[in-house]
Amino acid sequence: MAKRTGKQTISMDKTLSIAGTGTIVGTVESDGPLSPYFDVHMNDAEWNEETWEKSESKMQREAVKIAIRKSGFEADKIDCIFAGDLLNQCISSGFSARELEIPFYGLYGACSTIVEGMSLASLLIDGGGADNALAVASSHFCTAERQYRNPLEYGGQRTPTSQRTVTGAGAAVIRNYGSPPYITHVTTGKVVDFGVTDQNNMGGAMAPAAVDTLITHFEDLGRSPKNYDLILTGDLGKFGRDIVIDMMSERGYDMSENYSDAGCMIYDFSTQDVHSGASGCGCVAVVLCGYIFEMMKKGLLNDVLVLGTGALLSPTSTLQGESIPGIAHAVALSTTPGGGKNAVC
Amino acid sequence: MAKRTGKQTISMDKTLSIAGTGTIVGTVESDGPLSPYFDVHMNDAEWNEETWEKSESKMQREAVKIAIRKSGFEADKIDCIFAGDLLNQCISSGFSARELEIPFYGLYGACSTIVEGMSLASLLIDGGGADNALAVASSHFCTAERQYRNPLEYGGQRTPTSQRTVTGAGAAVIRNYGSPPYITHVTTGKVVDFGVTDQNNMGGAMAPAAVDTLITHFEDLGRSPKNYDLILTGDLGKFGRDIVIDMMSERGYDMSENYSDAGCMIYDFSTQDVHSGASGCGCVAVVLCGYIFEMMKKGLLNDVLVLGTGALLSPTSTLQGESIPGIAHAVALSTTPGGGKNAVC
Repeated sequence: MAKRTGKQTISMDKTLSIAGTGTIVGTVESDGPLSPYFDVHMNDAEWNEETWEKSESKMQREAVKIAIRKSGFEADKIDCIFAGDLLNQCISSGFSARELEIPFYGLYGACSTIVEGMSLASLLIDGGGADNALAVASSHFCTAERQYRNPLEYGGQRTPTSQRTVTGAGAAVIRNYGSPPYITHVTTGKVVDFGVTDQNNMGGAMAPAAVDTLITHFEDLGRSPKNYDLILTGDLGKFGRDIVIDMMSERGYDMSENYSDAGCMIYDFSTQDVHSGASGCGCVAVVLCGYIFEMMKKGLLNDVLVLGTGALLSPTSTLQGESIPGIAHAVALSTTPGGGKNAVC
Repeated sequence: MAKRTGKQTISMDKTLSIAGTGTIVGTVESDGPLSPYFDVHMNDAEWNEETWEKSESKMQREAVKIAIRKSGFEADKIDCIFAGDLLNQCISSGFSARELEIPFYGLYGACSTIVEGMSLASLLIDGGGADNALAVASSHFCTAERQYRNPLEYGGQRTPTSQRTVTGAGAAVIRNYGSPPYITHVTTGKVVDFGVTDQNNMGGAMAPAAVDTLITHFEDLGRSPKNYDLILTGDLGKFGRDIVIDMMSERGYDMSENYSDAGCMIYDFSTQDVHSGASGCGCVAVVLCGYIFEMMKKGLLNDVLVLGTGALLSPTSTLQGESIPGIAHAVALSTTPGGGKNAVC
């Protein structure tokens, strides 16, 4: 049975294995440095579908199928799926699940969704409510641009703090028992709002939520950044990452050694015109389910803390003068059951 | 520890009490027959806020506060909150949670959200991941109309199968141990799509999902409609309810005796012009957290099966020619731990 530790952290009792993952990325992501770690590289934004929205739904469905196949299960052995995306009414997820015939929990955690889903899947399995569960999240540059910003044809100029929404879908099957990596702890985030109103600076808006969850995680478990080989936030970009380092330093935590942001990893800043970096549900989903998973499989990373970061705004809330609330959910991963460098917890 | 029973049903091991609820409704709902069962009756659609969206967010926040107060807990004893609504990016929930400082899981289950949230809260508590958890959902006639349909000023004519979105928010605190009613079982729904494309007939679109979950629930537990004093679906309206009765009859289940739909209960069809009935996240949320909760508290209902029903479409998916996928999640409630008429399970 799961054990609550401190304010917001839950220690898994069972050995929760990430049994298999699936990742699909678009063309710009395929040109980036993490390209070899992704399963499928789309040849265009449509991917043989009539609309970008249908393309995104297909991406999510195919990522699920790959994750299930690589986990060694048949689809009917997956007890439930946690899924979400950025589109209004989460249609990528709903229409994807229509063809999967797996019990379905829809999530909206903005870009924190894959970590929210992996958290709930872990808690459900640890508590006996499921043997195997799947988490999936997706985003698509073209669907996000036209829903959140402007028609692509408009060709609007972007600010230095703006980020590019990743075209990508990542899925992970979590099971009781199995091979590493393992999910050892879950820290559930609170909604945090520091009053940022610039929707072209999402990284800055979400950074305080990441800091809140990081400090809570460390305090709940008596840990520090040194307990991890890598601490990864979801999609804060260059500006948001620097804010996290500064804010954590003020609180006495040195994040300069082993902290990265998935939004700073997917693209090559020297050759790709992506401003502050990557964002979107798919950003941390493909980095976590692709690069991190493979690095842990190979034993090149052994203890990793991943924070999914979400900005809980909408175009309507912005038009109504609201600031941007952020949230960050964390999962601690380890190649050792219970956590390697952290066996005391 | 929770016990999986059959394909999609989980039997709770602990005695999960609904410790307190909070309900808030608008003016039209206040004129309906269930009005005495709701905690707060708004005097207008704005509720002293600048916009309808901010009003809905306030409704959700106040429903949460009432539920916590009536449960006897302090807010800091609530381990997490599961929240969702119908607005793009679920802003009612995100902005509501900003002021609550409770660990937050955002959901999108369309109008099934309160039952999805109560399911996950129950599973989390039963599995040891939380001691107390809260589920909340809301909808608002004015925010839904302008987001999904037309500006209110347009005064569009509506079809006989159309339903009125409830202005309402319902919240429930669930805890381990305590007084009845108890949540004894959870049945997680799959996404079901029978190809209905008429977005003015949501009840018809969602009915097959309700039937799928009902039959799965009965088969998983070896039960029938006779095991319940009342079976309640969320917001199918008159047309959807009749489809459920017909489809269940074809499968050998008599639903004519003890089946109601929350969408047919909130308004008075003889005096209120609401076409096929009520809909929206708030519909089943206020009926469940208001009327059903009170009737079970008084022992006038002892075994109730509640299905939250959601239509997972968006205006964009409709414009792209897609049909309407539906989902239904079920929770079994009883005044007896483990289930009264159903002790064998």
